Order: sequence, then C-alpha cells, then structure tokens
Amino acid sequence: VIGIDWGSSGFRAYRLSETGAVVARRTAASGIASLTPTDYAAVLQQQIGDWLHDELSSPVLLSGMVGSRQGWREAPYVECPANMADLVTQLCPVDLGAGRSAQIVPGLSCRTADGIPDVMRGEETQIFGLDLPAEATLCMPGTHSKHVQVRDGRIAGFATAMTGEVFSLLKSHGLIAAMLAPADSKPEELDTAAFETGLTLSGQPGGLLHHIFSVRTRRLFNELSAEAAAHYLSGILIGHELRATAWTGQVVIVGTGVLAMRYRKAFAFLGIDADAAPEDAAATGLYRLGQLAARRTP
Amino acid sequence: VIGIDWGSSGFRAYRLSETGAVVARRTAASGIASLTPTDYAAVLQQQIGDWLHDELSSPVLLSGMVGSRQGWREAPYVECPANMADLVTQLCPVDLGAGRSAQIVPGLSCRTADGIPDVMRGEETQIFGLDLPAEATLCMPGTHSKHVQVRDGRIAGFATAMTGEVFSLLKSHGLIAAMLAPADSKPEELDTAAFETGLTLSGQPGGLLHHIFSVRTRRLFNELSAEAAAHYLSGILIGHELRATAWTGQVVIVGTGVLAMRYRKAFAFLGIDADAAPEDAAATGLYRLGQLAARRTP
Repeated sequence: VIGIDWGSSGFRAYRLSETGAVVARRTAASGIASLTPTDYAAVLQQQIGDWLHDELSSPVLLSGMVGSRQGWREAPYVECPANMADLVTQLCPVDLGAGRSAQIVPGLSCRTADGIPDVMRGEETQIFGLDLPAEATLCMPGTHSKHVQVRDGRIAGFATAMTGEVFSLLKSHGLIAAMLAPADSKPEELDTAAFETGLTLSGQPGGLLHHIFSVRTRRLFNELSAEAAAHYLSGILIGHELRATAWTGQVVIVGTGVLAMRYRKAFAFLGIDADAAPEDAAATGLYRLGQLAARRTP
Repeated sequence: VIGIDWGSSGFRAYRLSETGAVVARRTAASGIASLTPTDYAAVLQQQIGDWLHDELSSPVLLSGMVGSRQGWREAPYVECPANMADLVTQLCPVDLGAGRSAQIVPGLSCRTADGIPDVMRGEETQIFGLDLPAEATLCMPGTHSKHVQVRDGRIAGFATAMTGEVFSLLKSHGLIAAMLAPADSKPEELDTAAFETGLTLSGQPGGLLHHIFSVRTRRLFNELSAEAAAHYLSGILIGHELRATAWTGQVVIVGTGVLAMRYRKAFAFLGIDADAAPEDAAATGLYRLGQLAARRTP
C-alpha cells in the first residue's frame, strides 16, 4: 500500500510493506491550501513517482483535507457510527494518469441529539490505525481538536473544539495579543505554573469569555509576566476544552510533540488518566484501509 | 459641571446646568487611541474651549480610558465595593493650562474569591448616572461587556466578558470568517431565527469552543446561509456570556442601539426580565460626581 496523509498545510507519504511496516516516508510542504485540483496528480508524480512506478499493483490511498471541497475532489462524509468497512464502501477515486487511479478516504460526520452536525477528515484514518480499546474516548489535539467516542471498533461520535484556532487568534490580534511577549521563542518550554493557573481558572464560574479577560487584568496588576501570559491563556482554553467533554472509557491522547505534551499535563492536572497513542497511526490506518479495499476490489 | 466621556475611540462632552440638564453636547472622533499625553489639553481647548472660557468656576470631569495607562494620566482603580464618594476621594487632576485643572474619575477594580482581578473605566460613571435599584445586576454590552452587581448605591463587584472582541476576531480571521457573507451591510436587521438558534445551542453541552465550530459545519451542509451565519454566531456568544452570570435582583441593560437590542432579545429568549436604562447615564454620572467633588473642595 502507498498511503498519503494530505492536509491543509502538509503532505506525508508512506510506502508500506505487505505486513504494514513503513518502508519509506516522504514529507513536503505541498498542503492543499497551496494547490488547485489540476495540481494534485503532478505533485504526486513529483514526490513519489518512483514508488508509483515500482509498485504498479499497490493500492494508493489518500486521506485528509485532500478530500474536502477545497481539495482534489470532494469525498463524501460517512455518518457515524462507522467502522473501517463503512469507509471503504465510499472510497472516492481520482485519476493518476496512465490508466491508474488512487482512492480518497471519505470523511466522517455525526450529529448531536439536537441535530447539530460535526465533521472530520483525516483523523478517521489515524483512529483506525490505532489498536482501539473496546470503549475509549480519544483526544486529538490540534487547531481544531477532536474528542472521539470509540465503541467496539466503531467511531460512535465526536466533537470538534476550535481551541487551537482561538488561541492563535487571541495571540495575534486585539487586546490580549498586546499583553503577550512578542514571540514565544521556546514554545517547548512550558511555564507549568502559569499553565496550571489557567487550567484551575477554567473550572471556576464566569465562563470562557470572562476568564480570558484576566490575561489583561493580571498583566495590568503585574501578577503575570508577558512571557507567562501565553501559557496561562493556553491553560484557560485547554481547560475549557477538556472540562466540556465526558471522558468515558479509556482516554487516549492521539498526537505528538509540544501540543500533545501540554494535553498530557492538562489531563494529569485534571485527575484524568490518559494514555498516549503511537506515532505512525496515520500510516497504519492507510495500510489497513488499503488492505480492506484490495480485498473488496481484487 | 463640564463632563467628558473620553474612550478609546470617541470623545463626548456635556455641558450641564446646575440641575444636571444637558445644555449642550459635542462629540468627536478624537479617541485616546490616536493621542499622546501632550495632545489632550489642546484637544480640549479645540473641542470645548468656549465652554471652558464661559464657565471658569465649573468643575471639569473626565471619565473613561483617558485615565488609563495609555491615556492622559493614569488614574487609580478604586476597589469594590465602592460608591460615588469613594470615587471622588481619588479624583486625579490634570493641568488644563492657565492655572486651571480637570479631574479624571478613577476606575474600579474587584477580585473574585480566587483573587482574579477585574477592572472597568468609564462604566462606573455611567452606572452612578442611573437611578439604581437597591439590588440589581446591570448588563453593559460592548466590545468588553460588563456585568455589574449593585447593592444599596454601591458597586459590589463585576465581571467582564470579551464577547464583542471575540465576535469581531472570529468574523475577521480564520475558518469562521470564511463562512460568513463578506459584509454585514444591515446589522440592525437581526435574523432572529438564526440568533435564537445560537442562543439555544449555548445552553447545550460541549462548551463554547465546540459550539462555534457548528458555524462551519452547518454552512457546509447548507443548513445556515452566509447571511444568517454572523447572527447565529452572535447568538452563541451572547448566550454563553449571559448564561455564565447569576442575574440576581433587578436586571438592567445599560446601552443603546443595535447591540442593546440584541441583548434585550437574548434576555427575553432566556426568560429573564430585563429593563432598559436611559441614554444619558454618562452625562448624569459626570454631573453627580462633579457636584460631589465641588462640595468636597469648595
């Protein structure tokens, strides 16, 4: 299987052996935000033309925002609850030229009891790359974090929180931005005390729209340094995000790097046991979906 | 009394009779955001030099962001609970030239039980211009809305919600901005159905960071028009703001125009009786503080 995780800002390709091991990987900055529909086939040839040439009979799977309305071709949203087989029935073909095609993995949608819809693209492939517990709630931190209910190998439902985007907006514009140190040059060095003060505040009355104003007032009274302010704000926002979800079953943080580390600290501070998922979940998910697809269409 | 409500973006001067009637008013766009400390005396001469010349013995009071660190001179914050007399003891003089001075009304501060500070500047003057009920909670909509507890003529405490600023950030940048009609050409024509759908959602589980993502998903599934989306978002944010406060005593909306109308609709939808305050509260507050100050320093 050749699998590609193709998102808004990045391209990650995996060449996978018959047993699902990652034989080779390539990454590029060719996210879909910089491409038009006619560019995609050429980018694939440029990035992994040699793989495609070597493996003429391997299924090629694409997942992520490449299947959005702004991507190569809009793939459907499969409704939850959904398992891998449900995804494979709605793969969406795109033409690679020379009579060959690739398949875009569909996204997932779900609705709350009130009928409010939610969507994901790309995360479903990561999720099916995990060894899923029978009952779990996954936390996938990001610009748009996902909290995902998993039951017996199916994705039962999920909710998106715009935590990362709101953090970025508040850091870049307006009143709070003016209260922060100009650049967070070492984001990996978390100011734990400030972060945890923000987490604590998120559990108090008053609501998020009130709590964030305290970045200004605590700076004004010199109770918070310009350097610590972004960490404090991050704690307020992540605290609100995590407190709004019921963390049932086994809790698993799916993600790596600085952001996943912050979420691990937040869960620990809130007294919720959370495990960490392995790194190559997307590659494994693409492999498993590719295997299933190959069995369906021999 | 000559009273000036001088905020970040505007200048409103009132010439007040001995009984507190507004004899004349002048407004200008000379907000403090466009001024440096050396500009203020000249702006006053330019805008109301004739009033100052005619009324040599009248107290001149300034309120609002003119007393902030970014204003003419930083006036202190008086701690809550506070009444008018507490404000008058900490008036902050500025020099108008020719041996004359004006007085800046101090701001107010308070702290939650956890010690998180909050501040206001300008609203305290509006509040003391009202005929205050013995026990009331005031709602002062704005870029930074204030919810103010009033008890027996004192401001007991208050909380700021950044509703207006967050609305503006989400409308101007990022994922949600791309979902809205380019310009809200008729903000006074509220789409009540969309606004109330947002108010309803704000009472559901999931939290604000999740709820705002539904602007995207409902647009994606064509369940919300580009024109209605901003009104829906406004309902979500105002709903979260209002639901986070305990509205005890008489509820009074202090404000005018389109925004106050939205808040009136929101309170009605949430089943909370709310009255509306008169328009000239700032002028009356400046008059009352000026009278008190004149009695102190004859």
